[in-house]
Amino acid sequence: MDTTPRAVTRLIDEFHRLPGIGPKTAQRLTFYLLRAPKEHALSLAEALTQLKDKIVTCAICQNIAEENPCAICRDDVRDRSIICVVEEPLDVLALERTREYRGLYHVLHGAISPVDGIGPEDLRVQELLTRIRREPGITEIVLATNPNLEGEATAMYLERLIKPLGIRVTRLARGLPVGGDLEYADEVTLIRALEGRREV
Amino acid sequence: MDTTPRAVTRLIDEFHRLPGIGPKTAQRLTFYLLRAPKEHALSLAEALTQLKDKIVTCAICQNIAEENPCAICRDDVRDRSIICVVEEPLDVLALERTREYRGLYHVLHGAISPVDGIGPEDLRVQELLTRIRREPGITEIVLATNPNLEGEATAMYLERLIKPLGIRVTRLARGLPVGGDLEYADEVTLIRALEGRREV
Repeated sequence: MDTTPRAVTRLIDEFHRLPGIGPKTAQRLTFYLLRAPKEHALSLAEALTQLKDKIVTCAICQNIAEENPCAICRDDVRDRSIICVVEEPLDVLALERTREYRGLYHVLHGAISPVDGIGPEDLRVQELLTRIRREPGITEIVLATNPNLEGEATAMYLERLIKPLGIRVTRLARGLPVGGDLEYADEVTLIRALEGRREV
Repeated sequence: MDTTPRAVTRLIDEFHRLPGIGPKTAQRLTFYLLRAPKEHALSLAEALTQLKDKIVTCAICQNIAEENPCAICRDDVRDRSIICVVEEPLDVLALERTREYRGLYHVLHGAISPVDGIGPEDLRVQELLTRIRREPGITEIVLATNPNLEGEATAMYLERLIKPLGIRVTRLARGLPVGGDLEYADEVTLIRALEGRREV
């Protein structure tokens, strides 16, 4: 006989549906919220409810935003001659944290992956090409897709489309991660690090 | 400039407030829900909202339940002569999963912890004593608090209160976990395993 209240098992199930949340973690979170003040659970519920209502997609860079166009695309201080192409909104966050990149972005919302049935038509590729053709000031496209099979395929695909337009296409450097250990670097990373070696 | 929509950062913050959810996991969960169908986030929000509304505390065993008294306390098939005392509702779940224990429970909702300022008066100890005095059929109290400092202190405290009432007080066995490796067992567990050794 399962004697757990339905409201409890339901929340455990809901947490368990989230990626990376196993049954034990789902249980732990649920019982934590049971003990915590009611406001805690309610404020999480409210944040979830508002998540999609208050969010739009920027018609220019396709990133998620509060307003359309987004704050980055509207920002006059940013360098409009360079567009960094990424797979996901989280990648924009990661690049913004560096405080080094001052250009614009374009979010593809995925990568080409024949295994998962994702082709270029499922990504915001057309929007990128239209953008490049319409805005004459663009001089460089930085392909910042993930350094894995899907990301590489996507970058190669975009490179072949954009280069003929007479625009400089670059990619993020491959090499040893800073703070990493050469001993533990995989072969492909080491090969890329050797290929990309620079005079000091 | 932080360019992330407020609705997104708010949900990241809310997830991050949960125990064991770091900033990276909170981000990952939020962006997962952004991509997932709207119903997913809303159904989690609903489960959170209903969590406390539909839950009561059983006046007998102090466990969380849908009805008062709870399903276990109402169950006529269970052995009413034995009460297993646990710290949390999750412990009841764990013991129920064994399908071996057929007695009743008593949930303390915590353990004695002077460091955290939790004394016996913060636990459901009085309710346990009243229960033992009121119901004459009780012959055994199994102390199933956690095998750590707080759990041991709580068990010792309860033992001293209950034994004088002429009721058998037992504790869960300490020893090597099944499937574990003697080589990796800590010293205290090994000492307890030796103390509790049985003739075969």
